[in-house]
Amino acid sequence: MATFARFEKDGRVSYGLVRAGGIEELRGGLFDAPQPSGRSFALDEVKLLAPCEPPKILAVGQNYVSHLGSRSVPTKPEIFYKPITSLQDPDGPIVIPEDAKDVHFEGELVVVIGSTVRHASREDAAAAVFGVTCGNDVSDRNWQRGAGKDSQYWRAKGCDTFAPLGPWIVTDLDYSDLLLRTRVNGEITQEQRTSDFIFDVPTVIAFVSRYVTLTPGDVIYTGTPGNTRRMLPGDAIEVEIEGIGTLRNPVQAG
Amino acid sequence: MATFARFEKDGRVSYGLVRAGGIEELRGGLFDAPQPSGRSFALDEVKLLAPCEPPKILAVGQNYVSHLGSRSVPTKPEIFYKPITSLQDPDGPIVIPEDAKDVHFEGELVVVIGSTVRHASREDAAAAVFGVTCGNDVSDRNWQRGAGKDSQYWRAKGCDTFAPLGPWIVTDLDYSDLLLRTRVNGEITQEQRTSDFIFDVPTVIAFVSRYVTLTPGDVIYTGTPGNTRRMLPGDAIEVEIEGIGTLRNPVQAG
Repeated sequence: MATFARFEKDGRVSYGLVRAGGIEELRGGLFDAPQPSGRSFALDEVKLLAPCEPPKILAVGQNYVSHLGSRSVPTKPEIFYKPITSLQDPDGPIVIPEDAKDVHFEGELVVVIGSTVRHASREDAAAAVFGVTCGNDVSDRNWQRGAGKDSQYWRAKGCDTFAPLGPWIVTDLDYSDLLLRTRVNGEITQEQRTSDFIFDVPTVIAFVSRYVTLTPGDVIYTGTPGNTRRMLPGDAIEVEIEGIGTLRNPVQAG
Repeated sequence: MATFARFEKDGRVSYGLVRAGGIEELRGGLFDAPQPSGRSFALDEVKLLAPCEPPKILAVGQNYVSHLGSRSVPTKPEIFYKPITSLQDPDGPIVIPEDAKDVHFEGELVVVIGSTVRHASREDAAAAVFGVTCGNDVSDRNWQRGAGKDSQYWRAKGCDTFAPLGPWIVTDLDYSDLLLRTRVNGEITQEQRTSDFIFDVPTVIAFVSRYVTLTPGDVIYTGTPGNTRRMLPGDAIEVEIEGIGTLRNPVQAG
């Protein structure tokens, strides 16, 4: 088990290995067996960034029965894309666009792909997971399915800052039964275990890879449980996952 | 007016400037004022690639009245994303997934963004266009809106090879009134002028940029006119746009 972060220190961006109380800087990319640079820092001396630079961001909709409401249980994973410009760092603001009317949090487990995946079996799919992190699949319900519904989720799920990710990636963690909790200003608003997925992670990856090749660094937001509600400027949203950590983001007006 | 291509020659990938009968190799990326390397080749000595490496691929749906059928005219641009793994080179095969039932061509003008665009006016949006090329927004109608409809277009529009692009990018071309023609095995199946867009290019870019930041190399497929039909393995699809050239791709079974 290892914990990888991406961070900025004195204007330089690096990957690092998080150890008790500190971070050891690495040379090179996350997927080219990076080596220690010899420098290390206390965690509070660095600015944590989204923990990888994904070529693509995928997400699964309707993946917990508790989130479906009146919608029927899907018979296959329902996938969508978030643009890479929607990524937000830990502690970076979620910015509500001026004309967005109903922007919700969605706390989610996010898997990071470590190798190229195409027409994978469930076993190959599981082996392609580099690690896991926390994500917030920020969603405007008006553009998603309200009176102002767009044909597709492009802005409902894709505005700048609508994909907070982090605080870091944990490898070799059994992610099949982890407790996920979302808090708004300290109050728990979502609480469920990843064992309740309708489609588990290997099933999602294998299914996607029949159509769309996944490559190292791609991330998949795996779906959100339970109920969500509107966020307002000034709120602080925390997504905490057992064994990983807490992703915290403040909410700002655009 | 200049014509930029991306190509492979002896295992090396470069950008190049297309001149009468040949291609002059450039050093560096498309957006960092690349300089001639001094090497040049005949066009038939190189393999043309998709002419840029887009960080994001956006597309506009329902942007010609002639393509709407019974759907009403949209009141705002309807945007979706195609994943970067869907890109295909000129002459590269469009591969029909085994379980896809109704895969259509969609010939389109594609604009390439040259600078970072955020909350742009129409004028700034127009100034951010680096150039234009031809694209085929390959679409499975069953997964898009048939009996096998997915929640989102992720595989209807996003399978590997579903975004042919090229053959090259032409800069400083007035793209507001160009004739677009798609041919299947030589027979014209789509024929319309870009002056018939419901939302013209500056309007689309300005609208998108209120929500999603565009960055250099991003491409936008601008929508398809008229009627389309199912492609079958063995077909050859050509998208020809006046002043640009012809993007040709064969169709293969997956």
